[in-house]
Amino acid sequence: MIDIHSHFLPRITRADAAAADPRAPWLAETGDGVGFIMVGDDRFRPVEARLWDPQVRLAWLDDAGIDVQLACATPIMFGYAWDAAAAATWCARMNDLATEFCAADPRRLKTLAQVPLQDIDAACHEATRARSLGHVGVQIGNHVGMKGLEDPGILDFLRHCAAERMPVLVHPWDMMGDARMKQWMLPWLVAMPAETQLGILGLILSGAFERLPRNLDLVFAHGGGSFAFLLGRVDNAWTHRDIVREDCPQPPSSYCDRFCVDSAIFDAGALRLLVEKMGPTRVLLGTDAPFPLGEQQPGALVTSTFASDATVRDAILTGNAQRVFGLP
Amino acid sequence: MIDIHSHFLPRITRADAAAADPRAPWLAETGDGVGFIMVGDDRFRPVEARLWDPQVRLAWLDDAGIDVQLACATPIMFGYAWDAAAAATWCARMNDLATEFCAADPRRLKTLAQVPLQDIDAACHEATRARSLGHVGVQIGNHVGMKGLEDPGILDFLRHCAAERMPVLVHPWDMMGDARMKQWMLPWLVAMPAETQLGILGLILSGAFERLPRNLDLVFAHGGGSFAFLLGRVDNAWTHRDIVREDCPQPPSSYCDRFCVDSAIFDAGALRLLVEKMGPTRVLLGTDAPFPLGEQQPGALVTSTFASDATVRDAILTGNAQRVFGLP
Repeated sequence: MIDIHSHFLPRITRADAAAADPRAPWLAETGDGVGFIMVGDDRFRPVEARLWDPQVRLAWLDDAGIDVQLACATPIMFGYAWDAAAAATWCARMNDLATEFCAADPRRLKTLAQVPLQDIDAACHEATRARSLGHVGVQIGNHVGMKGLEDPGILDFLRHCAAERMPVLVHPWDMMGDARMKQWMLPWLVAMPAETQLGILGLILSGAFERLPRNLDLVFAHGGGSFAFLLGRVDNAWTHRDIVREDCPQPPSSYCDRFCVDSAIFDAGALRLLVEKMGPTRVLLGTDAPFPLGEQQPGALVTSTFASDATVRDAILTGNAQRVFGLP
Repeated sequence: MIDIHSHFLPRITRADAAAADPRAPWLAETGDGVGFIMVGDDRFRPVEARLWDPQVRLAWLDDAGIDVQLACATPIMFGYAWDAAAAATWCARMNDLATEFCAADPRRLKTLAQVPLQDIDAACHEATRARSLGHVGVQIGNHVGMKGLEDPGILDFLRHCAAERMPVLVHPWDMMGDARMKQWMLPWLVAMPAETQLGILGLILSGAFERLPRNLDLVFAHGGGSFAFLLGRVDNAWTHRDIVREDCPQPPSSYCDRFCVDSAIFDAGALRLLVEKMGPTRVLLGTDAPFPLGEQQPGALVTSTFASDATVRDAILTGNAQRVFGLP
């Protein structure tokens, strides 16, 4: 079983964070294997040692039955809004720390790099450097300020990743919304899935997939957000409204073979629909561990949903990740 | 076949609109049965005579095989951000014009009223007046500025509607988002379904359903937006994160029996999932006519998806609407 979507955050000190940017996160351990992701004086999120301690992570992989896990930055580490040079230095440092994290068992722990996506040249450089360190792919946010994935610079970065054979996991972050979404984690429940759908639709409706190489491996987190469920609405709009199709020559659903999604959707019916829309070779196990909004029993949903279909089950749990990320 | 979700916009003149508010829409007919919804000098959307001409609408109902259709305001008519007194006058005028629209065949054309929801007393008054005019329910937007449906005033309005036996159709409008969503109707494809999900989750996670009467009939447009597909994510978050469940005593999915959705989802797999989550008595045919993003062949998706299940098919196409809206 290979989990392609999990997060880490290294033991960043407050001084390390402050040296990078006032918005940089740091880790406050409060003892007994728990702590907080902090931003300045503010507690951003309670966390546990699996997030930063590779030995604790490895023990948990044993318990969870995960053979190989890909860990990537917690999105608050992205730094896309910071000074570009400071972000480039930060990303390199985080990627080095990710390599250290994996060194506890490089056969089982793999990483996806982070890059300073506000500076395309620097992002390409860091992706190449990370590849040489052993990172098996890159994680990017679904936008950089007002630039969506269809931004020409970001498309150049994606082309670079294709040329380097670096798969790209797209993770939602910096969520749309307003004061109506202050409580109950609504940005995570409403806006994150919308951000992911927006990322996919930006590539489709801009016609970007017509210009991106077919060997680019793109994977969208959280089952692609609300994309699969709303695909009928999008195809219908494309068919009947000129301004929807003006830059997109083919029906939106025809581009589903250009990307993959993870399985973090938490419902059997939704997962079945996702596999129906994406095809069984384009859904990959992703747990979103070690966060509370992740799958607490890794693989349980896929295993129970496809209990009677070993081919689909094994593809989602293992085979698709082996193919996309070049893993043994 | 009863269509519970269609729109109208009466022949509002530019002077009528200007007298209400600079943001009020008006209708510019350009001949040959087409025209534009205008706001000031700006073309908001191309439209056709079915939107404003009841005779054209009735001829189309014949063609489409729709026995009864509920028409409600196009959301740009809501006026929630205007001066409250001006909006109250406007709503009364629009509701009178809706009654005139239906007078062409009051047996087949029914309306849902609009109300000045920024002023709860005025909104309750207009709902009662509209009931006396023959409106069979009320349509409201999913929010009023920064107030979601869980706002205490809006809950008072919903209680009033329950007491008056006025079902409430909730329609997304005034969509979240930013400059990344300027093109390809992204606000309609991404943010509208997110707004509808946000409306439902606001009621659920605030615990409002614990305080609302069970005889309130709520219907959410566009199949409830992305709600049904993301319900597993929400239940999982409620289970594992204290700040998600702090105001909501039961699992979010347990509240699905407190509201209905329409069928405007444009995909057989998505519709099946919707019926699985909501139950076959809580999905009602809605076309979103006469707009291009609506179902162009009314009832075709429901009919084909449930071709072999007449009970479910007839419930969605007719029976559920008869029950909820008290129609013969």
